[in-house]
Amino acid sequence: MTKSFPIPHGYREVSPADLAAIASGLPAVSDRLGGPPSALQVTEVSDGNMNAVWRIDGPAGSVIAKQALPYIRVIGTSWPFPVDRIAFEHRALTLQAHHVPHYLPQVYDYRPELGLIFMQFLSPHIVLRHGLISGMQYPRLAADLGGYLARSLFYTSDLYLSTSRKNAIAEAFSGNAHLCETTQDVVFTGPYWDAPLNRITPGQERQAAVLRADGPLKLAVSEMKHIFCSRAEALIHGDLHTGSIMVTADDTRVIDPEWAFVGPMGFDIGALLGNLLLSYFSQTGHATVNDDRSMQRRFLCDTIVQCWTAFDTGFRHLCKTEAGALQNPQILTGAEQALFVDRLLAGVFRDTLGFAGAKMIRRIIGISHVEDFETITDIPLRVACEARALELARILLLERTSISGVQDIVNLAQEIAARPVS
Amino acid sequence: MTKSFPIPHGYREVSPADLAAIASGLPAVSDRLGGPPSALQVTEVSDGNMNAVWRIDGPAGSVIAKQALPYIRVIGTSWPFPVDRIAFEHRALTLQAHHVPHYLPQVYDYRPELGLIFMQFLSPHIVLRHGLISGMQYPRLAADLGGYLARSLFYTSDLYLSTSRKNAIAEAFSGNAHLCETTQDVVFTGPYWDAPLNRITPGQERQAAVLRADGPLKLAVSEMKHIFCSRAEALIHGDLHTGSIMVTADDTRVIDPEWAFVGPMGFDIGALLGNLLLSYFSQTGHATVNDDRSMQRRFLCDTIVQCWTAFDTGFRHLCKTEAGALQNPQILTGAEQALFVDRLLAGVFRDTLGFAGAKMIRRIIGISHVEDFETITDIPLRVACEARALELARILLLERTSISGVQDIVNLAQEIAARPVS
Repeated sequence: MTKSFPIPHGYREVSPADLAAIASGLPAVSDRLGGPPSALQVTEVSDGNMNAVWRIDGPAGSVIAKQALPYIRVIGTSWPFPVDRIAFEHRALTLQAHHVPHYLPQVYDYRPELGLIFMQFLSPHIVLRHGLISGMQYPRLAADLGGYLARSLFYTSDLYLSTSRKNAIAEAFSGNAHLCETTQDVVFTGPYWDAPLNRITPGQERQAAVLRADGPLKLAVSEMKHIFCSRAEALIHGDLHTGSIMVTADDTRVIDPEWAFVGPMGFDIGALLGNLLLSYFSQTGHATVNDDRSMQRRFLCDTIVQCWTAFDTGFRHLCKTEAGALQNPQILTGAEQALFVDRLLAGVFRDTLGFAGAKMIRRIIGISHVEDFETITDIPLRVACEARALELARILLLERTSISGVQDIVNLAQEIAARPVS
Repeated sequence: MTKSFPIPHGYREVSPADLAAIASGLPAVSDRLGGPPSALQVTEVSDGNMNAVWRIDGPAGSVIAKQALPYIRVIGTSWPFPVDRIAFEHRALTLQAHHVPHYLPQVYDYRPELGLIFMQFLSPHIVLRHGLISGMQYPRLAADLGGYLARSLFYTSDLYLSTSRKNAIAEAFSGNAHLCETTQDVVFTGPYWDAPLNRITPGQERQAAVLRADGPLKLAVSEMKHIFCSRAEALIHGDLHTGSIMVTADDTRVIDPEWAFVGPMGFDIGALLGNLLLSYFSQTGHATVNDDRSMQRRFLCDTIVQCWTAFDTGFRHLCKTEAGALQNPQILTGAEQALFVDRLLAGVFRDTLGFAGAKMIRRIIGISHVEDFETITDIPLRVACEARALELARILLLERTSISGVQDIVNLAQEIAARPVS
């Protein structure tokens, strides 16, 4: 945390007045706003942990401006963080736009010296995590996310690309190493010792201590860390939790790929399923007299199963229709190629389970928590919800080689949720 | 094969007279030769498939000059090949010199525009493959190669390096993609179909046809191809067969890392063990009335076991004494870290088995054969030797997850070798 990073020449933290002036000078942005700086209204709408986000409203429309700060926004200057992370976000959005444009915000302009991206104001979209907390259901969500995963991963993997082209992508994201190292620390190490910025819900201390003394669990997490470091499978988003997804009833957009690098496919899928499972276990904490959230829990279970299934189906389809040399079409029959993809996806599923478990645990006993639980004001109830999530997470990590399908995850979750609180 | 590659500005294929003049102009080279161009003798000593190699003798000493041609030397201009491969060789030799200097030739100078490296003339070293064919035994070989593998792999892996530093290495070799693609083709695809330049010893056609119709085998080879493409574990040599090793009774040097890239550790170890196994199965073909080669076969079995054991021991030692963040020392006890390394090495061993099998098969029914078998003039005997090697190779690929240790490989090899020729 005492590292320092180069700050681009000409960088400054922008003010609302700055932003109005800059936006007006960029045709692709000002055309959408439709008025001079004086006619623009700039409102800070920062929501994630990392960056400053602004909404700019003009007579003709609205635009989002996102600036990377030279530190982690919610922590402050005591935790310096590289501004150039937004260069990788810009690069990822640009590259993914070839394959999944309809699942991304459109980028209008990018000012590298300010670490500033102007992009589409998604409206009436809300952050998926907030929607799920408030009990909203999104019937298209699973198909959209499965499609996003299948296409964004397949088209940047060895299954589609030659080694030259894949290496060019890996190289383009290789400089994002500090963010990878941060993930290694906050996901795969920090939660398992008494790291300075860890937080634990009062009452969860005993469970946290049990996990931190659990040898097989720590070993499994360390193995997932190794997989995270050494599997160069595809360009991954790198932080695909439910706060990185914006939704309406009929549209789904994946934002914030600043953690992108060429890594294991299961890390994206696991982040997603893990966060859906956190939402599932948090639902009891959001029940009211009118809504026990059983429908929402059922929706989440269905979504988890369908997310994987849609990814799996979409990925297999691409393997059939657009496969490159890796799939060895010169020597494998069609049936053998299908078997090859079966085994490859079985490996991705195992990684998905391990990463889902690691991502769940880190959100409960690590540095960064999720609103799904944090907004449960009844602390003993929150502790009980979290404890169930931890229990499943542990099983996902330890039994990732024996859990045979996505329905098993949901069955386990339901079984754990049905147990009386101890 | 119809690809074309940029040729450095100023490149020309050097003549002996050129070489004498160039060598004299480079202090680090001419100091070792100790005379003017007229006092130098230049002799072509090209031996491998790829490059032109010259020996330059002067009054004070000798130097090796190696030039990358813009094509594959033994095939000719019909197979263009990138000259810049030698830049990666130079880079690998430079980087590895930090960790295993005593197992490498010393580099004196490098002229990128000519694709030309001047390096140590290793004397009285011979190519290990030739030594093994002629029945020579090298008692230090296994310890040296195990040490080379342990150190060269550990110090360029996530176990030692931060992600930033490892990514910098991966980036430095990412441009060597065409050589990786060539390996993918000639090792993991070409041998399993009727590729134009494949060769088969007359009499081996039936066995080749059986392997090319073997679904599980082709699937296993395709999985190894995927591992080759996507496991960014360490800087590997990329072509560590017994022709890339120069030996005397008490010195071992690894040459020719032009195929280097950040890939799976098991590929180097598998190439080595696979080629030692080829030597083992070829020995019967080199028996004479005075020497049935049983001692040589025993030496090879011991060497195979000791190579892995020395690698394994050396690697574990480095993990204990120099481990970085990947090993999670903050959260794992010493015993848990040892378990972590156990499991990691078990994975490397599985990959080693699969790659050894693939490398053996490709040398018998693929484009590039080995002198171990090619010098057996009794063709039916050569076919019988090769058939046994193919049989073991198939088992290594198919049973790579169940073979439990290196002694099992040797036991299997001895069992297959003891069977009467069918």
